[in-house]
Amino acid sequence: MKRLVQKYGGTSLSSIDRIKNVANRVGKWRETVPEIVVVVSAMAGETNRLLELAYSLSDNPDKKALDQVIASGEQVSAGLLTVALSDLGYEAVSYCGWQIKIITDENHGKARILEIQNTRLEGDLGDGKIVVVTGFQGVTENFLSITTLGRGGSDTSAVALAASLGADECLIYTDVDGVYTTDPRIEPDARRLNEITFEEMLEMSSLGSKVLQIRSVEFGGKYKVRTRVLSSLKNPKLSIQDELSCSTLITQEEDRNMEEALISGIACNRDEAKITIPGVPDTPGIAHKILGPIAEANIDVDMIIQNAGVDGLTDFSFTVPRSELKRAIERLESRVIKEIGAKTLHADQYICKVSVIGIGMRSSVGVASKMFEVLSNEGINIKMISTSEIKISVVLEDKYMELAVRTLHAAFGLKQS
Amino acid sequence: MKRLVQKYGGTSLSSIDRIKNVANRVGKWRETVPEIVVVVSAMAGETNRLLELAYSLSDNPDKKALDQVIASGEQVSAGLLTVALSDLGYEAVSYCGWQIKIITDENHGKARILEIQNTRLEGDLGDGKIVVVTGFQGVTENFLSITTLGRGGSDTSAVALAASLGADECLIYTDVDGVYTTDPRIEPDARRLNEITFEEMLEMSSLGSKVLQIRSVEFGGKYKVRTRVLSSLKNPKLSIQDELSCSTLITQEEDRNMEEALISGIACNRDEAKITIPGVPDTPGIAHKILGPIAEANIDVDMIIQNAGVDGLTDFSFTVPRSELKRAIERLESRVIKEIGAKTLHADQYICKVSVIGIGMRSSVGVASKMFEVLSNEGINIKMISTSEIKISVVLEDKYMELAVRTLHAAFGLKQS
Repeated sequence: MKRLVQKYGGTSLSSIDRIKNVANRVGKWRETVPEIVVVVSAMAGETNRLLELAYSLSDNPDKKALDQVIASGEQVSAGLLTVALSDLGYEAVSYCGWQIKIITDENHGKARILEIQNTRLEGDLGDGKIVVVTGFQGVTENFLSITTLGRGGSDTSAVALAASLGADECLIYTDVDGVYTTDPRIEPDARRLNEITFEEMLEMSSLGSKVLQIRSVEFGGKYKVRTRVLSSLKNPKLSIQDELSCSTLITQEEDRNMEEALISGIACNRDEAKITIPGVPDTPGIAHKILGPIAEANIDVDMIIQNAGVDGLTDFSFTVPRSELKRAIERLESRVIKEIGAKTLHADQYICKVSVIGIGMRSSVGVASKMFEVLSNEGINIKMISTSEIKISVVLEDKYMELAVRTLHAAFGLKQS
Repeated sequence: MKRLVQKYGGTSLSSIDRIKNVANRVGKWRETVPEIVVVVSAMAGETNRLLELAYSLSDNPDKKALDQVIASGEQVSAGLLTVALSDLGYEAVSYCGWQIKIITDENHGKARILEIQNTRLEGDLGDGKIVVVTGFQGVTENFLSITTLGRGGSDTSAVALAASLGADECLIYTDVDGVYTTDPRIEPDARRLNEITFEEMLEMSSLGSKVLQIRSVEFGGKYKVRTRVLSSLKNPKLSIQDELSCSTLITQEEDRNMEEALISGIACNRDEAKITIPGVPDTPGIAHKILGPIAEANIDVDMIIQNAGVDGLTDFSFTVPRSELKRAIERLESRVIKEIGAKTLHADQYICKVSVIGIGMRSSVGVASKMFEVLSNEGINIKMISTSEIKISVVLEDKYMELAVRTLHAAFGLKQS
């Protein structure tokens, strides 16, 4: 490999010792790879500390000013890592988003990268310098203000830089050593995947497997960036070969080795709540009438189910983030229920979502029926179902989550051999 | 007044409540002054916290990276104050040094301001916005890296902005309500001066009265910026008239009211140590031979005394910062004493320096002799004397400092009436 982008998250930089470890690890790579760009998050806890300061001054802080405040966390860790690298004798230089320049739209707090002007980076890499870059931030096109990319945005910064620089690989160092077939805290026999496709990873991310920010996976898929997840908590002196052999590579489907399993993983979460409005008139536009006010309130809706109606009436169900349930109910009661001629609504926050994911599902039938059978054998009732080409999700009673995950994990042959 | 620059130090911004106070105070001014620029320091303690992080990674941290790290403190407080102002309903916008743009030389850690490009500021002020600017920092001319201006640099940022914007006044809010005739902790009867000239203030600053960074005073004098020192710790609802009546204005000599005292103040410090090399050959170049190696070691020398020699020999004395005494002695013993044919050196760290300062001294004789008489009457021996046009400094035995200050303060009629 000639050119690498590496990203280190907040946990990897949470103390002086860990920053030194990162410097040693980067240095080790630099011995064999001539061009290295390092993207850093803020030290663990720092972004939250800054957010708390701002929110104790205002319930609704000015968005530009807030971005200026929270972007400082990455500025500090980038500078500190550069200090550590220089102390080890490496020529290193540190840049903020506005210096690179990483140009974004003006959507403060969740800006999107529009363009990376990396002339300066190319020059430094050509000079043999290690370049340290702040993740999570950019600057608006008119150069007037600092923007941030949203939680986990450093992953996206790293993948975008790797795409823009044509890096051979983008290494995402984090506090786990890869992507697992399911959450190892639920299923101790969960197995690290050597490879996973971007599409599968997208489903895993969006379903609550929090290894990578979902936008970074989209970005990596679109621009075909070989992205690898590995642990920064292992001994930095581990050989490069040993590091690579204990990681997960996210690849294009066509690149995939013959590891081919039907199912790659089981994702699960307890982040959602379910709302059902019974007795809704089955007329055109009814979904919009119900969900429009929810969207206006900036509440994400995930699963939506509407059955074919009987007697012109139907039951309408959907899920929202559990933390937004109260606001959603208030909206519906004040602005929807009467208007659409419904009588009441039922809310259920004691639900979980369990999903099986696998690119192999495309060319194989029977995954859904096998999943339902397995759950049925355990006496678990399914409340909602939704499917995509490479994923089947079910909503279950909250208490069954661990049981469902472990049973499906075994049934689809995902256990460590 | 139409246009003001205000500067708030770290103590004024050290907590959420104090930031709110600053926002209220700025808001109060905004009700009568249409154009306001606010310059902020980092929250108290923040710069030290960041320095500690960097120095625990390296004994000699990379200077560019270090500046990037410590500049973040002002970025945070500027953003937070803007959040607080917006929350009060004011239109406010916050900028870092590179956004303004405040161009400096490349002398990281103690950069000097070369130019301020304030088109952006003028636009915002014209739109009625309150502009919040980070003190202490700038950006290099090639726009490649963040620089900082050294301890207390925010004062200089504020005065430079006031000069560049042609502001009517630059208000330096700090934790004292002005410049006093001497340190009130030593002489409780010390009196706040309503006015002081830039030259007097320069002498006060350089002699250890730490109200303002000395470079900001130089800058203010050079560009004729009316600079005022006031307290940010008083009730922010105090009327503007009451605030102004309890402050010190630093002015050009020609603007000065007829307050005219012979002496404006007494400065003192215990920061220095004295080195004497007896029996030095009284030959050309001897001062350079002694002080050259000290300067190379980056040790500041303050007072220097060489008497006319007797028998071709003389005693050579000078003072250095007390914290550098050990290094200075090592240098002299290893590289100087033998070379110049001297036998030994005497070091004395138990000294203090006391100075009387006043522009009136220029047109009046007898200040020096009165000073020496007063000290003599108290039985205080003078070890060294140095003078400038508007200042006389003496070095005394350490233990006499408070006594000397109080006696001189009374003798020159500086007490509160």
